Amino acid sequence: MLSKNFLAKIPQLMQTNDLMEKIVSLCKRRGFIFQSSEIYGGLNGAWDYGPLGAELKRNVKNAWWKAVVHEREDIVGLDASILMHPRTWDASGHTANFADILVDCKKCNNRFRQDHLKGKCPVCGANDFTEGRAFNLMFKTQVGAVEDEKGICYLRPETAQGIFVNFANVLDSTHRRLPFGIAQIGKSFRNEVTAGNFIFRCREFEQMEIEYFTKPADAEECHKAWIEARFNWYLNLGIKKENLQLRVHDKDELAHYAKGCSDIEYNFPFGWSELEGIANRTDYDLKQHSQFSGKDLQYQDPVTNEKIFPYVIEPSGGVDRATLAFLVDAYHEETVNEQTRVVLRFSKELAPIKVAVLPLLKKNADIVALAKNIKKDLQKSFSCVYDDTAAIGKLYRRQDEVGTFYCVTVDVDSLEDKQVTVRDRDTMTQIRIPVDNIKQYLAEKF
Amino acid sequence: MLSKNFLAKIPQLMQTNDLMEKIVSLCKRRGFIFQSSEIYGGLNGAWDYGPLGAELKRNVKNAWWKAVVHEREDIVGLDASILMHPRTWDASGHTANFADILVDCKKCNNRFRQDHLKGKCPVCGANDFTEGRAFNLMFKTQVGAVEDEKGICYLRPETAQGIFVNFANVLDSTHRRLPFGIAQIGKSFRNEVTAGNFIFRCREFEQMEIEYFTKPADAEECHKAWIEARFNWYLNLGIKKENLQLRVHDKDELAHYAKGCSDIEYNFPFGWSELEGIANRTDYDLKQHSQFSGKDLQYQDPVTNEKIFPYVIEPSGGVDRATLAFLVDAYHEETVNEQTRVVLRFSKELAPIKVAVLPLLKKNADIVALAKNIKKDLQKSFSCVYDDTAAIGKLYRRQDEVGTFYCVTVDVDSLEDKQVTVRDRDTMTQIRIPVDNIKQYLAEKF
Repeated sequence: MLSKNFLAKIPQLMQTNDLMEKIVSLCKRRGFIFQSSEIYGGLNGAWDYGPLGAELKRNVKNAWWKAVVHEREDIVGLDASILMHPRTWDASGHTANFADILVDCKKCNNRFRQDHLKGKCPVCGANDFTEGRAFNLMFKTQVGAVEDEKGICYLRPETAQGIFVNFANVLDSTHRRLPFGIAQIGKSFRNEVTAGNFIFRCREFEQMEIEYFTKPADAEECHKAWIEARFNWYLNLGIKKENLQLRVHDKDELAHYAKGCSDIEYNFPFGWSELEGIANRTDYDLKQHSQFSGKDLQYQDPVTNEKIFPYVIEPSGGVDRATLAFLVDAYHEETVNEQTRVVLRFSKELAPIKVAVLPLLKKNADIVALAKNIKKDLQKSFSCVYDDTAAIGKLYRRQDEVGTFYCVTVDVDSLEDKQVTVRDRDTMTQIRIPVDNIKQYLAEKF
Repeated sequence: MLSKNFLAKIPQLMQTNDLMEKIVSLCKRRGFIFQSSEIYGGLNGAWDYGPLGAELKRNVKNAWWKAVVHEREDIVGLDASILMHPRTWDASGHTANFADILVDCKKCNNRFRQDHLKGKCPVCGANDFTEGRAFNLMFKTQVGAVEDEKGICYLRPETAQGIFVNFANVLDSTHRRLPFGIAQIGKSFRNEVTAGNFIFRCREFEQMEIEYFTKPADAEECHKAWIEARFNWYLNLGIKKENLQLRVHDKDELAHYAKGCSDIEYNFPFGWSELEGIANRTDYDLKQHSQFSGKDLQYQDPVTNEKIFPYVIEPSGGVDRATLAFLVDAYHEETVNEQTRVVLRFSKELAPIKVAVLPLLKKNADIVALAKNIKKDLQKSFSCVYDDTAAIGKLYRRQDEVGTFYCVTVDVDSLEDKQVTVRDRDTMTQIRIPVDNIKQYLAEKF
C-alpha cells in the first residue's frame, strides 16, 4: 500500500521528474549533452558534450582554476596522467578495497549489488543467490606488448593519487612552504554497477580536486575554511542559496583514516545529492606512499629543519555534477505575452555564449554585413554567435533558451544612426548603443 | 666503419642531444614535466605536467580553441567521451587494422616489431623468430559487472571518431550549413610498442582535432586553406620559421580512402618530426558509420534538399608534441656579464607566468606589503607569482628560465615615489611605472 507521505509527494515528484526530462531534452535538442556513441545504441554511463555543453563545461573548469589556482597565492596546478603505476593503487587501498559486493541470481543469472537487494530477485522473483564476491570498480587494462601480471594497469578511479605521488616533485620544483595546495582537473573512471541520473553518476567522469597540505595542528581550522570557500564558489557562480546545503558526515561514514568530511549537496530534481566532498584525510596518503615507494615524502621545515607528514584537506568536486547543477539551477520558465519563455539564467562567467549578433532583416545585405562585422570584432573578446535563420522574436527565444547574456540587433536604423539595440536576457530591456561603443559597453559588463 | 657524413655530423648531434637533455632537466627541475608515478619507478609512455607545465599546456589548448572555435564563424566545439561503443572501432577500421606485427625471439623470448628488426635479435643475437602476429594498439578494458565479449571496450586511439559519431547530433542541434567544422581536444591512448623522445610519443597523449565538412567539389581548395591556416597557427605563437616545414605525403603513404595528407613538421633535437597531419579523408568515415550504424549520416542541403556525404578535411595535432615544440623553440642561452642566462622565449599567449612581482628587500615589511598588494591586484587579470626567496639577480634569472614575460620590482623608492620597475624578459630593459598605472600598462601588453 502506498503511504500517505508518498501520496502527498506525488505532485512534487511529477513536477521534478518533469523538470529533469525538460532539461535532458533541452540538452539534446540544443547541443549541450548527447548520449555517447548514440548511433550505436549508446554506451551506459558515458556522455558527450555538444557544442554548447563543451563551452559550458570549459567555463566551469576555467572558473574553478581561476578561483583556486590563479586568484590564490597558495595553490599550484598539476595535470597527471590517467594511467599510473599499479603500485599507486596498492598504496591508496583501491586494489584491496575499492569494490562492491555482487551476487548472481541462481535462477535468471542476473547480477546485482548485494547492498541494493531487498529479498527476492527484482528480475525473476527467485530468492536464491550465489555467495557475494567483491567486484573491484577500477577499469583494468594491459600496457605493453606482453600480456602478463606486470603489464596490468588501471584507469585512475580518482585524480587525487596523481597529486600525492607528485608531492615531492612539486615541493622540489616550487619550494613551497606549508600551508600550500595542489589542484588538478581531469578524467577519472569507475566501473559503476549502476550508473544513472543523466550526467550525475557516470563511469567516465571529470573531477576537480585540491589536496591542501597543512600542519597537523592547523588542519581543523583549515578544513573549516575550505568548506566555506568551496560553498561560496557555487553561490558566486549563481547557484541559489536555497538549493545548496552542507551535510556533515557521521563518524561511521568516514574512512578509517579520515578525521571529518562534509558534503556540499545540491537540490537536484532527483533529490539532495553530493556535488563535492571536503575531507580531512590526515597524513594517511603521504604515509602510505612513503611506505609503498620507499621514498621519504615528509615535508622539511626550511627554518627549523623539522620533518613532518603534513595533514591533507581535500576538496573534491565533480565537473559533470557541477555542470548539471548549474544547468538545473539556471532553468527558468515564465509566461511572456501568453507564451512560455524558457531561459537558462547562467551567470556571466558560465554562459556558453556571451553575445549573439542578430540582423533584423536577413535580406538587407547592408544590415547583414554590419552584423557580421560586429560579430567578427566582438569574437576576439567574447564567445559570440551570429544567427539569421529566423524572425527576431524566435531568434531571441532561441538565445534565451541557451542562456546567451546579450543580444545585439542590427536594424534599418542602424545603417543611418550607427546604433544597435542591446537586449538583456533576464530583464528583456533593450537599449540603443552606438556601434563604436559596443565592445567597450560589453567589456564593462563581463 | 663510420661514414664521413656521420663523422661530420657528430658535433651537431652532440649539441642537439645536449639540448634535449637540458630541456628534460629544466622541465623536471622547474616543474614543467615529471615522469608519471616516478616514486614507483615511472610508467613508460606516460608523463605528468607539473605546475608550470600544466599552465603551459592549458595555454596551448586555449590558444587552439580560441583560434579554431571562438575566432571563426564556421566551427563548433565538442567534448566526447574516451570510452565509446565498440562498434565505433569496427566502423573506423581500428579493430581490424590498427596493429603492429610482432615477433618473439625463440631463444631469449623478447618481443619486437617485425618492421624494426634488421636480421638478428638485438638482445641475444639469435636469428630464430616466431611467426609475426598482429598486435592491436588499442587498450582494451571491460565495462559492466559481467565479464564477457559484450562488455569489451577500448580507450579511444583518436578523438576523431567521437566527432563522426556525433555528426548528426551536432547538425540537428546547430542547423549548420556546409562548410562547417567540429573541433575537439581530449586524451587518446595507444599501446605503442616503443614510446619515446620525452613527451613526443606517449601511450597516453592529448589530441586537438578538427573534422571540417565540405562539399566534395570544394575539398581540395579547403584542404589547401587548412594546411596554410594550421601552419600559420604555429608561426603566430612564436615558432621560428626555419624550424617548421611542410611534408606532403607520397601516394603510397596514404590510407586507401585518403586523397592527400600533409604533415607540419618541427625541427626537434631528435630530427624533423610530425606536429600535425592535415588529411583529406574524403567521405570515408561518414559512409562507414552510416553503414555500420544503419543511421543516415548524409547532409541534406536546406535549399535544394539534395543529400550528400560531405568530404572531410582533418587537421589533427598533438597537444604534447606542440607543447614540446614550443618549449624547444623557446629555449635560448646567452652570455650576460660572463654568466649563462637561460631564457624560455615563450610568446605572450603561451608564457605560463605573465608577471612576477618581486620585493627588492624582503626584510622591509612595507616593500613586501606593497609587492603582495600589487600581485593580488594583478592576479585577477594575469597569471602571476610573488617570489621573495632570493636576491633580485637570482629572482630575475629564475623567472627568465621559465619564460615569465615581465618582472615588477618593488624597492625602497617605490614607497616614496609610488613607482615600480618593470623589466622586460627578452631585452632586460627596465622602466619605472607608477603603481596606479601598472595594471593598465600590462593590460595593453597582453
